[in-house]
Amino acid sequence: MAEKLKNLDDSDMNAIAEFSVIPLGVGVSLSPYVAECKKVLQERGIKHLLHAGGTNIEGEWDELMGAIKECQARLHKMGVPRVQTSIKIATRIDREQTMAEKVESVKEKLTKE
Amino acid sequence: MAEKLKNLDDSDMNAIAEFSVIPLGVGVSLSPYVAECKKVLQERGIKHLLHAGGTNIEGEWDELMGAIKECQARLHKMGVPRVQTSIKIATRIDREQTMAEKVESVKEKLTKE
Amino acid sequence: MAEKLKNLDDSDMNAIAEFSVIPLGVGVSLSPYVAECKKVLQERGIKHLLHAGGTNIEGEWDELMGAIKECQARLHKMGVPRVQTSIKIATRIDREQTMAEKVESVKEKLTKE
Amino acid sequence: MAEKLKNLDDSDMNAIAEFSVIPLGVGVSLSPYVAECKKVLQERGIKHLLHAGGTNIEGEWDELMGAIKECQARLHKMGVPRVQTSIKIATRIDREQTMAEKVESVKEKLTKE
Repeated sequence: MAEKLKNLDDSDMNAIAEFSVIPLGVGVSLSPYVAECKKVLQERGIKHLLHAGGTNIEGEWDELMGAIKECQARLHKMGVPRVQTSIKIATRIDREQTMAEKVESVKEKLTKE
Repeated sequence: MAEKLKNLDDSDMNAIAEFSVIPLGVGVSLSPYVAECKKVLQERGIKHLLHAGGTNIEGEWDELMGAIKECQARLHKMGVPRVQTSIKIATRIDREQTMAEKVESVKEKLTKE
Repeated sequence: MAEKLKNLDDSDMNAIAEFSVIPLGVGVSLSPYVAECKKVLQERGIKHLLHAGGTNIEGEWDELMGAIKECQARLHKMGVPRVQTSIKIATRIDREQTMAEKVESVKEKLTKE
Repeated sequence: MAEKLKNLDDSDMNAIAEFSVIPLGVGVSLSPYVAECKKVLQERGIKHLLHAGGTNIEGEWDELMGAIKECQARLHKMGVPRVQTSIKIATRIDREQTMAEKVESVKEKLTKE
């Protein structure tokens, strides 16, 4: 862990994030905008999972935040005057963990009982 | 829609929500607590989907909020001194929409192009 | 703490929460809706602080969640077809803490150095 | 607005954000970590307001996100094995608006009545 801490500024941090964009001033439908964000993630080759509450992504901090910024800019380019984005982003330096492993870890707890 | 508005206080509102609990003061592992919340949802028969960023649920407002409150109380009963919970909850009165339909709606947009 | 745990179901949990409502399908301005929510809090006598990112409230869990539900319903009554609400709610059983004490606690850390 | 849209990639987007960091695996107290983040904001000269639910900041997107990333890294350097951060970030291209103006706008609505 010491090595990881030492290099934390130089290298990037691996992260798991979840985000959702909310366009204001363009009516009630969100799906065209969520679809646009999904395209951004696909173009950038970022691993992602779309669900009813948002989109989960995993990768390096800057890579994830760069993609979210592009989503925000793309929505404005589509004519959205105001965009509110929620992000939850988690990093850990004790060990590596993917999105799939997080879900797996909960399921294990449930089947052990 | 007028009928719905008129009755909004009497009946309950249907909602889609996403929530995640963060226990503080009990170490670095979240999965035992997420598993406990999953049990609460199962016991109450609430439709839910666990993913890497939280848990999605759908149903009536009070039903969903009651379950989240019980999760919070259960974590304290497991010995967690401090719990921080994030909730995103959405209601719409223009039409009904399930969690599955939300995701489907984005996918349609992508395949149409 | 044992006593508190024992009674956790019977009594209510004290909580500090922050919430923000986002009305969809009604244009770009949020302030009339935030103002309506502020009125709900005033009518119910709930201690609150409005800031640029949302509204902070403190009190018993049910009291806070009841007020948030009423905000959501009021926005629909104002004609908003779709409302997305974000909530962060925190409870602790190790000791009581008000919103003011939370901020004070950070400031103390900074002046001690 | 057309001019703004055209340049959206080149220049940066102005944003108002709110964020809160939650350190896991280091006990129940959050204030030393929130204080550390406040120092990051002060060092970088970012306008900020600390409140009970998080910290509000305003400025250019990259500036804000750079500061949040540094907070996250600093917490790890303080020995926090796992950090969960929540961010709400809003941009608008119809007009400029500061954090203070957002709050003012709600208050105006209330006094007009």
